[in-house]
Amino acid sequence: MADASVRRQAELVRRLKAEDAPQDQISTELAKLMDLKAQLGINDGKPQFVLKTPKGTRDYNPKQMAIREKVFNTIIKSFKRHGAETIDTPVFELKETLMGKYGEDSKLIYDLKDQGGELLSLRYDLTVPFARYLAMNKITNIKRYQIAKVYRRDNPAMTRGRYREFYQCDFDVAGQYDAMIPDAECLKIIHEILSDLQLGEFLIKVNDRRVLDGMFEVCGVPADKFRTLCSSVDKMDKMAWKDVKNEMVAEKGLAPETADKIGEYVQLNGKSELINKLLQDDKLCQNKEALEGLNDMKQLFVYLNIFGVEEKIIFDLSLARGLDYYTGVIYEAVLIQKQANESTQQNESCESVGVGSVAGGGRYDGLVGMFDPKGRKVPCVGFSVGIERIFSIMEQNVEASNQKVRTTETQVFVATAQKHLLEERMKLLSELWESGIKAEIMYKKNPKLLNQLQYSEESGIPLVAIIGEQELTEGVVKLRDVSTREEITVRRENLIEEIEKRICSF
Amino acid sequence: MADASVRRQAELVRRLKAEDAPQDQISTELAKLMDLKAQLGINDGKPQFVLKTPKGTRDYNPKQMAIREKVFNTIIKSFKRHGAETIDTPVFELKETLMGKYGEDSKLIYDLKDQGGELLSLRYDLTVPFARYLAMNKITNIKRYQIAKVYRRDNPAMTRGRYREFYQCDFDVAGQYDAMIPDAECLKIIHEILSDLQLGEFLIKVNDRRVLDGMFEVCGVPADKFRTLCSSVDKMDKMAWKDVKNEMVAEKGLAPETADKIGEYVQLNGKSELINKLLQDDKLCQNKEALEGLNDMKQLFVYLNIFGVEEKIIFDLSLARGLDYYTGVIYEAVLIQKQANESTQQNESCESVGVGSVAGGGRYDGLVGMFDPKGRKVPCVGFSVGIERIFSIMEQNVEASNQKVRTTETQVFVATAQKHLLEERMKLLSELWESGIKAEIMYKKNPKLLNQLQYSEESGIPLVAIIGEQELTEGVVKLRDVSTREEITVRRENLIEEIEKRICSF
Repeated sequence: MADASVRRQAELVRRLKAEDAPQDQISTELAKLMDLKAQLGINDGKPQFVLKTPKGTRDYNPKQMAIREKVFNTIIKSFKRHGAETIDTPVFELKETLMGKYGEDSKLIYDLKDQGGELLSLRYDLTVPFARYLAMNKITNIKRYQIAKVYRRDNPAMTRGRYREFYQCDFDVAGQYDAMIPDAECLKIIHEILSDLQLGEFLIKVNDRRVLDGMFEVCGVPADKFRTLCSSVDKMDKMAWKDVKNEMVAEKGLAPETADKIGEYVQLNGKSELINKLLQDDKLCQNKEALEGLNDMKQLFVYLNIFGVEEKIIFDLSLARGLDYYTGVIYEAVLIQKQANESTQQNESCESVGVGSVAGGGRYDGLVGMFDPKGRKVPCVGFSVGIERIFSIMEQNVEASNQKVRTTETQVFVATAQKHLLEERMKLLSELWESGIKAEIMYKKNPKLLNQLQYSEESGIPLVAIIGEQELTEGVVKLRDVSTREEITVRRENLIEEIEKRICSF
Repeated sequence: MADASVRRQAELVRRLKAEDAPQDQISTELAKLMDLKAQLGINDGKPQFVLKTPKGTRDYNPKQMAIREKVFNTIIKSFKRHGAETIDTPVFELKETLMGKYGEDSKLIYDLKDQGGELLSLRYDLTVPFARYLAMNKITNIKRYQIAKVYRRDNPAMTRGRYREFYQCDFDVAGQYDAMIPDAECLKIIHEILSDLQLGEFLIKVNDRRVLDGMFEVCGVPADKFRTLCSSVDKMDKMAWKDVKNEMVAEKGLAPETADKIGEYVQLNGKSELINKLLQDDKLCQNKEALEGLNDMKQLFVYLNIFGVEEKIIFDLSLARGLDYYTGVIYEAVLIQKQANESTQQNESCESVGVGSVAGGGRYDGLVGMFDPKGRKVPCVGFSVGIERIFSIMEQNVEASNQKVRTTETQVFVATAQKHLLEERMKLLSELWESGIKAEIMYKKNPKLLNQLQYSEESGIPLVAIIGEQELTEGVVKLRDVSTREEITVRRENLIEEIEKRICSF
C-alpha cells in the first residue's frame, strides 16, 4: 500500500518532467515524493545527502561557542560601558533597500528566490539596515550596538577567517552633534575592545574622505573617478605603490602625472605633525573640503589624546575604505605581528606585519537621507568589529596554550555506585535544581561509578554528590571534590549550603 | 561629466531590455545605474525606497530588546542549569538537507536565488540542522541548546506573535539512553522555563506517536494515511471533533465508522489513571507499538512525579503535532487564561481558554539516520520554545504595568553647568571608563545643564557627576543622586570608590 503511493508519486514526477511542466510544479511534486520515501525509510540504497554546510559557512561546536561567548561578552561590556542601546533587524531586507549602497560590491549580495511576493536579499552589513531603521522610525538621535550575522557571496578563505556568513559587531552614533566628539569615542571603544581581548599589538589608521576627495581634486582627477580611485588607493596595504599606480593608469585611465601627484600624498602617514604639515600645504588647503577634513582631524587628535589612545592611532593618507557611503572620518584597526608567519606584505609605516583588518568604520552623513522621502539627513558615525578573524586568533591561542575550555557550567554531578537508585538520583537532582544549582546525572538506570566520575572529570564539573543505600539510610551525601579527589560526608539538610560555599571558592 | 556617465549607463540598460538580454545582465547593469545615481544624489524626484521590513518580519527597538534579553537570559539559565552546551549552525542549509523532512509544510521553506553554485534554503527549524550536524560530525552523545532565528513563508499574524522570521530556543538530548529519562528532563525544563518567566497558568500536553499509530492501526486506518491523519487530529485544539471527523472523511477519504473509532480515543485525556485504563484496552494493547508507548508513558509519569511537575502535565490523545520526524513521546505546552479575551475555543479538559502553544517537541529517533550514509541511528529527544508569543505577552505586561524599562546600563552621566569644559568632561569620563564604570556625556561643546539632567532622568541613569570651574580648582566633583535629587561633594580621588559604593546599593 505504502509502496504503491511512492510508485504513483514517482510516476507523476516522471510525467511532469516529460511534459516539461513548470519547474515549480515539478519541484513541489518531487518534494512530496522525497517526503513519502523519507517517511518509509527508502533511500534508494545510496547516501541521500551531501553532508556539508553551504560553501563559505561553518558550524560552531560547543568549544568554539564558549570562545565566541567570551569574545561577545567583552565587546558587549564595552558597548554598554559607553551607554549604548541595542536593536535587531531582520536577516533579509527588501532588495531595493540594499541597492545602490555598496558600489562594486553589490554583486556579492545574496538574493532570495522569487517565490511570489516581495523581492528580498540577505543583509550585506548592519549599517544599511540601521539607516533604514532610523529613517523608517524617524529617529534622529541614538547610540546603538547590534551584533548579528551578515552575508557576502565572496570567495571564502576560511582559514584566514573570511566567510560568506559572518558576524559583525556594530556600534554607531546617530545625531547632529559637535564635530569629532562621537568620532573620538568610536576610536576609544575600538581601542578598548582590542585591548580587552588581548590580541596583541594593534594600530588604528585614520583618514578622512574629504581629505581624499580634496586631494584627488587638487591633483586634477575628474569627479566621476573619485570612488573608483578610492578602491585602488585602499589596496596600498596589500600592494606596493607602483602596482597601485599601474592599476590607476592602465585600468582606470588616469594620466600618469596625475597618478604621481596622488602618490606623493597617499604614501604619507604620521600624527599631529603630519596634519600640521598638510595644513601648510597651500594647494591642498585651498580646497574647502580638504581644509575642513584636516581641521577636524586636528581636533580629533586632541580628543584622542585626552582619551589616552593617541599612541596607537595613525593618520594614514592611503586608507580609503571600499564602501561608497562614507563622507568624513574613516578608520580601520589592524593587528600587527613582529615576526612574519604569513606571506603578507611588509608594512613600512610600523616596521611590522599586518595580519589584517579587525575593525573599521567611519562617518556616513548621507546614508539615512537616502531612505528619507524628503532626503532629511541624520549624521552618523560608527564602526564594525569583524569578529571571525578574532575568533580564529583566540581559537589558535587556546589550542597553543593547551588551555581547557569548559563547554557547560554544571557544578554538581549526582552519582551512585549501586544499582536501582535512579529514582533516588533523580530526587536529589531535583532538589539541587530547585536551589538553582547546575546539576546533571547520567541518563542510565545503572551506570558504572567509574563512568560517572570520568564524565565529571572530562567535562570539568567541580563536585560529585554520591549516594548509596547507606547514605540514604543515614540521611547523608558524599561530596567529592573532583580536582583533589577528596570526599567528605555532608548531612543531606546541609548539602545545598556546603555546595554553595564550595562553588563560591572556585 | 558625472551626468554623462549616468546617461550612458541608462542607455545601456534600455538597450539590454530592448534586446531581451539575460535577466542577470540587466540586473547587474541596473544596479550599476542605481549606484551611479545614488552616488550623485539623483533620486528622480520621487521617494526611491519603500520604507518597510519584509512581510512577516519586524525590527526590535531598544525597549523590545531589553525585554528579549531578559527572556533569553531566563531560558539560557535554565538550559545551563541542566548542563547543556550550545552550538551554532548557518542560517541557510543545502536545499537537499531540508527536503523530505517537513511533510506538507515543505512549501513554507524560503529558497535562495540560484546565483550559481549550491542551491540553498533558509532553515525552517533548528532540529534538522542539529541532526545534520550530528551526522556530519559523527556525534552520538550530546546535550545541547541553540537559540537562533528560523524562517517560514507562512501567513503572518503578527499581533498574535506569528512571524515569518522568528526565534526558536531549542534544547535536545542525543544518545542511546534508558527509556524516558531525558524525556522527563525535557518536560521538567519546559516547566521550569514557563514558571520562571511568570507567564501565568500553563499546561503541558503529552502523547506518543506510537500510541497514535497503534490506535490508527487498530481502528483500521491504512498505513499511508497515518501522517496526514496526524495533521487532522492535531487540529482538535482549534476545531470541534465533528469538524475534524468531517475533514477525515470528506478530504482524506476515511470511512466514517473508522473515523468514529478514532474519535473514541482522541477525545480522551487524563493522567496515570487514563494510562492504566488504556493498558487494559485489549484491542489497543495487542498492538506492539501502542503497548510500548503506553508502558513508556507510565514510566514517564513516575519520573515527572519525582521531578515535581506532574500536576501541570496531561496525557492527551488528541495531541499529534504536525512534523513528520517524531517517533515517540510528543508534547506541547499551552498557556491558559481563566477568562476568554480572544475568540478561542473552549478547552474542556481544563475549563479554561488556551492562548496557544509556547513550546513543543518530542522524540525523533530516525532523523539523524536519514543523514548518515549507513543509516546509523542516533536517538534524540528535545523541544523548542516559541519565543515570539512569549515576547508579545511580556511586552503587553510591561505596557500594562507602566513599568519603566531601561535600555542602557549607564551608571554615571558627566555634566557641567558651564561653557568651555568639554575637554574636562572628557577627562573625567575617561577616568570613569578606565575604572570600568558605565558613563556618558552629551556630545556637545556647551550643553545646557537642564538638558543633561533631563536626559539622565529619562534614561534612568542613577548618578550625575557635575563639574565646574570651582570644582576643578578645588579638586572635587558634585555627585547627584538622580532619583532623590540630593547632591554631595566628593574629592576627585575618592570619586570612583563613592560611585562604586552607591552602584552596589541600587
